[in-house]
Amino acid sequence: MIPLRMIRRIVSSVTLKEETRCRTSNKLSRALSSSQIHHGSRNPRSPPLVSLDLVDEWSSSFTHSDSRPIQKCTNNGSARIIDGRSAAEEIKSSIAIEVSRMKDSIGKVPGLAVILVGQRRDSLAYVRNKIMACHEVGFRFSIAELPESCTEEEVCDALSNYNKDASIHGILVQLPLPQHFDEGKILNVLSLEKDVDGFHPLNIGNLAIQGREPLFIPCTAKGCIELLLRSDVEIAGKRAVVIGRSNIVGLPTFLLLQRHHATVSIVHAYTENPEIVAREADILVAAAGVPNLVRGSWLKPGAVVLDVGINPIEDPESEHGYRLIGDVCIEEAVRIASAVTPVPGGVGPMTVAMLLLNTLEAAKRALRLT
Amino acid sequence: MIPLRMIRRIVSSVTLKEETRCRTSNKLSRALSSSQIHHGSRNPRSPPLVSLDLVDEWSSSFTHSDSRPIQKCTNNGSARIIDGRSAAEEIKSSIAIEVSRMKDSIGKVPGLAVILVGQRRDSLAYVRNKIMACHEVGFRFSIAELPESCTEEEVCDALSNYNKDASIHGILVQLPLPQHFDEGKILNVLSLEKDVDGFHPLNIGNLAIQGREPLFIPCTAKGCIELLLRSDVEIAGKRAVVIGRSNIVGLPTFLLLQRHHATVSIVHAYTENPEIVAREADILVAAAGVPNLVRGSWLKPGAVVLDVGINPIEDPESEHGYRLIGDVCIEEAVRIASAVTPVPGGVGPMTVAMLLLNTLEAAKRALRLT
Repeated sequence: MIPLRMIRRIVSSVTLKEETRCRTSNKLSRALSSSQIHHGSRNPRSPPLVSLDLVDEWSSSFTHSDSRPIQKCTNNGSARIIDGRSAAEEIKSSIAIEVSRMKDSIGKVPGLAVILVGQRRDSLAYVRNKIMACHEVGFRFSIAELPESCTEEEVCDALSNYNKDASIHGILVQLPLPQHFDEGKILNVLSLEKDVDGFHPLNIGNLAIQGREPLFIPCTAKGCIELLLRSDVEIAGKRAVVIGRSNIVGLPTFLLLQRHHATVSIVHAYTENPEIVAREADILVAAAGVPNLVRGSWLKPGAVVLDVGINPIEDPESEHGYRLIGDVCIEEAVRIASAVTPVPGGVGPMTVAMLLLNTLEAAKRALRLT
Repeated sequence: MIPLRMIRRIVSSVTLKEETRCRTSNKLSRALSSSQIHHGSRNPRSPPLVSLDLVDEWSSSFTHSDSRPIQKCTNNGSARIIDGRSAAEEIKSSIAIEVSRMKDSIGKVPGLAVILVGQRRDSLAYVRNKIMACHEVGFRFSIAELPESCTEEEVCDALSNYNKDASIHGILVQLPLPQHFDEGKILNVLSLEKDVDGFHPLNIGNLAIQGREPLFIPCTAKGCIELLLRSDVEIAGKRAVVIGRSNIVGLPTFLLLQRHHATVSIVHAYTENPEIVAREADILVAAAGVPNLVRGSWLKPGAVVLDVGINPIEDPESEHGYRLIGDVCIEEAVRIASAVTPVPGGVGPMTVAMLLLNTLEAAKRALRLT
């Protein structure tokens, strides 16, 4: 059941990516960040062995590394456009068939629950997409909506209830939580078997360690690799560069590419000469949440480019006054890359499809159908 | 108490690094490996999203990438030699003082336990080093020696006993276990609070995820970073390349360098043109277990080179008929790098010192002295 007040609230048509949301909270920490570390030669002495976290603030030296204006491509370029939307539709169709069979045979369907704290517009949009996707494939969907003023205990209680609910096989806490919450502490409450986002440290550890298998692979990383595999892109032995090292996209994408035997590098806000590193990539994954960060000059000719960023930018000609663009300057990329994912319609729909797939897997495991 | 039979058995003076031991088991899997994947352009189609493990078999195309004979340096080169032995001694002295104070004030000392299955010569040598180090700093040391023919249950029982033993604060299972053991299953039994090797997936996950802190940082990785910090090597923003991606060295070293804000790449046995990747490194960590893999041509002038490999090679002129060399061709490296760690006497002693440090931390945590 979708609460009516939920549907009323979800009015925005903006579909922002997780990375973009992180950027907002980054801004809040700008003072901290800039006092701790600077880009390039002004790097401080290395910090000690613990408590090393710094906010990845992409400085203007990155975003203006190429000051030439972006030129629209007159011949549409030569790069193949990797259609994430149709791949996601295909996956969802298979899931729907499996759900239908499951319902017929045992009278049960996979169930996904979301815990939503507060009313961030982007979070509401994400949740709306998840609700719609669940309906499409025949999943049960449940949501616990809590006000921003709620306590950690209330969030943990809602989590515990879903942990115990046998009709719910996957649970996710819509991130980011309001600033005053201890995200790690709350995620620790989540049952490992229902962690369909795959963000639990045990899942991440098992993804990192050769010889172990995580219960769930984080959805965006899984979506990226799935797109590469479906596009017949060879991964093993190739150089891959992931731009951005967020816990939810950059890190798991690195780990998954590495498990597919790519030679992987991570570029982050403190990387010196990021464009030089990026240009080494046969496979480039851009997940920094910075619009048009990756210019044509950042690309190796023939590279395969996956654009995870979804950034709203002003556009008076668009219906809503803005449009969505990625981290990759698509106009330039199509002339240099061999294949690129569009924004929207690339990695985004795959992320949702992978969430459904993880939830289906969780249900099959719980119902002993595997 | 060190069992007498233990001392009698430990006769070898060879101090092999963990990586080297992995190599031996790699050889056992050669048939599997070569049937699955080949280096370079013969890479297979990317495998699916799960069960991606391949054995890292460093092919001859790597080891013979530079066919020129190694020339001994006549002027000893210009690179600074990073003295891991004296750094380790310094750390051990501080630990000994703290242990002595602990004993005086509460009558307790940190305790380390090792579970040793079988009688691999290298494992025995490692254990001997650990015993000696424990004695040096005043730790209690206990060992459970099990025959190679023992069952998984017997190993788990030994582990459980140490888990419950309040005088033991750190436990490690000497790896590798004999082939028929499920290493992951056994390590899962180990109490997280006593996992001083830091190999538990929850520890690795917490090392990987920004904003979380692992209880323990794996010893070799920690030793490498400690050496860099003590040598005033700037890490943040610099390019680091880790050669080798083992769970015990390569992976945690990557993760720790990344948390120190280096731009890190991992080179492994399926990397195309590894010398080109290696040459990008301001900081190079060689942990492949292949003698002289890293030739001078693999180094960027001025790079800082940490050599984790400890490989025995035949040498009729040496007392035992062999000597130990690293993964880095030191004769060539000293002329190109700005600083290098020697083998032996570099990273090796630091690994043991970090194990003691982790055990001290574990004891202080358990005894609520932090």
